[in-house]
Amino acid sequence: MRGVVMHAAGDVRVEDLPMPTVTEPTDAVIRLAATCVCGSDLWPYRGADEIRRPRPMGHEYVGIVEAVGSDVMTVKPGDFVVGSFIASDNTCEICRSGYQSGCVHRVGMSGAQAEYLRVPLADGTLVATPGQPEAELVPSLLAASDVLGTGWFAAAAAQAGPGKTVAVVGDGAVGLLGVLAAREMGAERIIAFSRHADRQALAREFGATDIVTERGDDGAAVVKEMTHGLGAHSVIEAVGTQEAMLQAINSTRAGGHVGFVGVSHDVEIPGRLLFGSHVALHGGPAPVRRYLPELIDLIRQRRIDPGKVFDLALPLEDAAEAYRAMDERRAIKALLQV
Amino acid sequence: MRGVVMHAAGDVRVEDLPMPTVTEPTDAVIRLAATCVCGSDLWPYRGADEIRRPRPMGHEYVGIVEAVGSDVMTVKPGDFVVGSFIASDNTCEICRSGYQSGCVHRVGMSGAQAEYLRVPLADGTLVATPGQPEAELVPSLLAASDVLGTGWFAAAAAQAGPGKTVAVVGDGAVGLLGVLAAREMGAERIIAFSRHADRQALAREFGATDIVTERGDDGAAVVKEMTHGLGAHSVIEAVGTQEAMLQAINSTRAGGHVGFVGVSHDVEIPGRLLFGSHVALHGGPAPVRRYLPELIDLIRQRRIDPGKVFDLALPLEDAAEAYRAMDERRAIKALLQV
Repeated sequence: MRGVVMHAAGDVRVEDLPMPTVTEPTDAVIRLAATCVCGSDLWPYRGADEIRRPRPMGHEYVGIVEAVGSDVMTVKPGDFVVGSFIASDNTCEICRSGYQSGCVHRVGMSGAQAEYLRVPLADGTLVATPGQPEAELVPSLLAASDVLGTGWFAAAAAQAGPGKTVAVVGDGAVGLLGVLAAREMGAERIIAFSRHADRQALAREFGATDIVTERGDDGAAVVKEMTHGLGAHSVIEAVGTQEAMLQAINSTRAGGHVGFVGVSHDVEIPGRLLFGSHVALHGGPAPVRRYLPELIDLIRQRRIDPGKVFDLALPLEDAAEAYRAMDERRAIKALLQV
Repeated sequence: MRGVVMHAAGDVRVEDLPMPTVTEPTDAVIRLAATCVCGSDLWPYRGADEIRRPRPMGHEYVGIVEAVGSDVMTVKPGDFVVGSFIASDNTCEICRSGYQSGCVHRVGMSGAQAEYLRVPLADGTLVATPGQPEAELVPSLLAASDVLGTGWFAAAAAQAGPGKTVAVVGDGAVGLLGVLAAREMGAERIIAFSRHADRQALAREFGATDIVTERGDDGAAVVKEMTHGLGAHSVIEAVGTQEAMLQAINSTRAGGHVGFVGVSHDVEIPGRLLFGSHVALHGGPAPVRRYLPELIDLIRQRRIDPGKVFDLALPLEDAAEAYRAMDERRAIKALLQV
């Protein structure tokens, strides 16, 4: 089968790879309906993460179950399924508390930018849709497997809700879907930080009431001004840099919450700043599995359309161009047709 | 009047100071019934905080109202009052959300190690007890003004509650009262980190079910072992050093909470550690005012006896010895009789 492999920074190739098979009784193998490139894939692409050996890429996926191991009970061949980027048993104490991405048996997914994918812990990881979804819903279901689930977790961690002012740092797919999540959670005012017209437009479509183009301390100062000097109640950090984290903390009022989901790179949070700010911090890899049933339902009801973050769709064979387009910010998020 | 002044690290003197007066219509002046030395007073005493000019010390206080400004409505001369270490208006949006220590008009208190004290924003800061308390309750009411309120906030920020395992880093007065708070909030298991027999004994008296003598990574490893490899649900950080903060984060399970109240000194929280841990962090200067009515009530009912943290009582004139005893860890907390 064909799949995407990163050999070095900037060097993405589509290659012949071994066909994945059921190797554990809890495995499923799925045939991808669609996959995509993640903002976090750009870290190694840009050289910010080391690549020691060729790495099969991709951790966002929807598809049809092809085969299951003997212990798999909840999905069967032919089911259309949505997974998440961390496989989980969904039965351990951590999973039951809602933190499936911290599952004691968790397995980080990779190799989803391909025709087929082995999914470990299938019962705890995959959620089947009721029947086969219409083709137009596939991009939104694909978004649920990571960027929507991550934006949703960020908004929940930031305690977005009725009457709240929410600010969103990061105008990538996760940030934009954080805007959508905050709107669904009933936020009164949603401030999106963005300098790009296309992303600003999508942010507004997803529910942003205000756009701020300033960044860093200047951006935080604008949010303070907009909120009687207090700061937002809830701030989503969807970048992962020191500047973004400080911008998030400094945009938040005393007693407010930052939900951070940008994969931390150079972040060192000054203890004294956090202590003095009274800001609560919560985040990490999103427990997407917690939200999948609800998100699938909202998508099937056509209440939300998170698939709009895909502004580029290319055949799997053109993965290298998909990476380039995202790296150069010509695309918000690229879907790969399998 | 007499009051304590720190001139340099290790140099604490009791001196004649000007009598405080009502200078704003929202002020009260109180005659101290008792005051005390705080663990945070040891930072400048040990040279960890710079002292540019002689500093009147003390921010924990109970006493009798001597005089009030013309705008003060809720307390009157003769009332016995408990205050907190940050004066607050208790009416702004931040105060109403429960973060009085982040009040937009907040004033950090100092000069409470003295015979008299000016309290700004008296209506928003002071809480009068119903009638004059019995003398034996005074130490506990004094504890409410900082260390109890701080331990209480830490336990609340760590989401201590029924069924939870709570670990407490720091065996000073705040940590010990964090143990007491966790017990009052219904925690099932309370693990106190301590190497000192006297503090271990008080921790047990306040509700600790387990004592751990290891520190740092070793201490966190012991907590993990005690909790099936998962970590505690709730961890209180009551020290303020990098070692203590990392010990707290590393002792907490995915989806768990750290409540941190140790005044941050050398703390830099690695973003990647926090991201990967799924631990929620919340803390800062405790909004003691939020809890004062409830704490005063619990003390008056004799349901809690936080005054036990005072294992040394000295006349105000002997303040230098009180500092020395705490610095040398001969005393957990020293009360100063006024």
